[in-house]
Amino acid sequence: MELLKQKILSEGEIYEGNILKVDYFLNHRIDVPFLSEIGKEFHRLFKDSEVNKILTIEASGIAIGTMVAQEFGCPLVFAKKNKTKNIAGDVYVTPVESFTHGTTYSVMVSKRFLGAGDRVLIVDDFLAIGNAMNGLIKLVEDSGAKLAGCGAVIEKSFQHGGDRLREKGIRVESLAMIESMNHETGEIVFRS
Amino acid sequence: MELLKQKILSEGEIYEGNILKVDYFLNHRIDVPFLSEIGKEFHRLFKDSEVNKILTIEASGIAIGTMVAQEFGCPLVFAKKNKTKNIAGDVYVTPVESFTHGTTYSVMVSKRFLGAGDRVLIVDDFLAIGNAMNGLIKLVEDSGAKLAGCGAVIEKSFQHGGDRLREKGIRVESLAMIESMNHETGEIVFRS
Repeated sequence: MELLKQKILSEGEIYEGNILKVDYFLNHRIDVPFLSEIGKEFHRLFKDSEVNKILTIEASGIAIGTMVAQEFGCPLVFAKKNKTKNIAGDVYVTPVESFTHGTTYSVMVSKRFLGAGDRVLIVDDFLAIGNAMNGLIKLVEDSGAKLAGCGAVIEKSFQHGGDRLREKGIRVESLAMIESMNHETGEIVFRS
Repeated sequence: MELLKQKILSEGEIYEGNILKVDYFLNHRIDVPFLSEIGKEFHRLFKDSEVNKILTIEASGIAIGTMVAQEFGCPLVFAKKNKTKNIAGDVYVTPVESFTHGTTYSVMVSKRFLGAGDRVLIVDDFLAIGNAMNGLIKLVEDSGAKLAGCGAVIEKSFQHGGDRLREKGIRVESLAMIESMNHETGEIVFRS
């Protein structure tokens, strides 16, 4: 998605340790008119996959998931991190290691909101090593729902999480794939 | 908003301690087509207030804020809880006590994303005692932005947070106001 690449180049910030921050349009300040285009693009890619539910993970995935769900006219379910008073009853739960924060947390979805009969499109902001995406896929599998595919706004393809999923036969679509980036020069190379 | 009241009555769950759960359409599974109507309603209420930025708080506010920002054609900024690696540099920060979780956390917004020149509409899922809303208002004041008003999807008016804000001259619009609820009978009385 050319417009996304341009935004990453003009508004993204690279930090040591292969960290790309897109706080200006995706992770803190959200450029909602732009996000609407992201929603349309995922719909274009998956419109023939009979998707009836979008699944994402709090917090940064929620805005993206909302726009994608709007295009599909279907509900969004967001997986929660840690157990809070606000989730009651039976949940599907799996541990996820956070590359960004260096911790492990639990990801969970209420059994009421995911199950056989659902055809699920998972969306998230980033796909790097793939830990969060793998956790969400595990929740879909545990629930008996069908996985239609995975969509990431930005894939750090040099961390190979996306390719490992593709090797398993899972359809993964990323709107921008970063092959390399350099925090000293600011250079970003996209996979074409 | 009549449709919202109907959804609260048919899909909400009341628990002891004045807890209303709306996980089925707002806080876990998000009914996005319905949320689109919520966005339109807030736009109708505040369309003459020259709003150029929507502010909310993670996580449950994000989907609502996204839909409202879409109607206004403006960016959404979501305040973050706790400090993470993902926020760099200077932030506006204020403590907020959580009624739901019984803890105190920090709420913060990057100084890059809120400031003089902004006319801010704050939106959130619930307004009860008003702790989260007061925290967001404090961030707006600290930043030098103008507060256009506050919008809550559901106000628990028996906890008086909304009325205290109105007494200060702040415009607060809630799409459903709950006067009382009873977890034993399941009865909910709305303020008309």
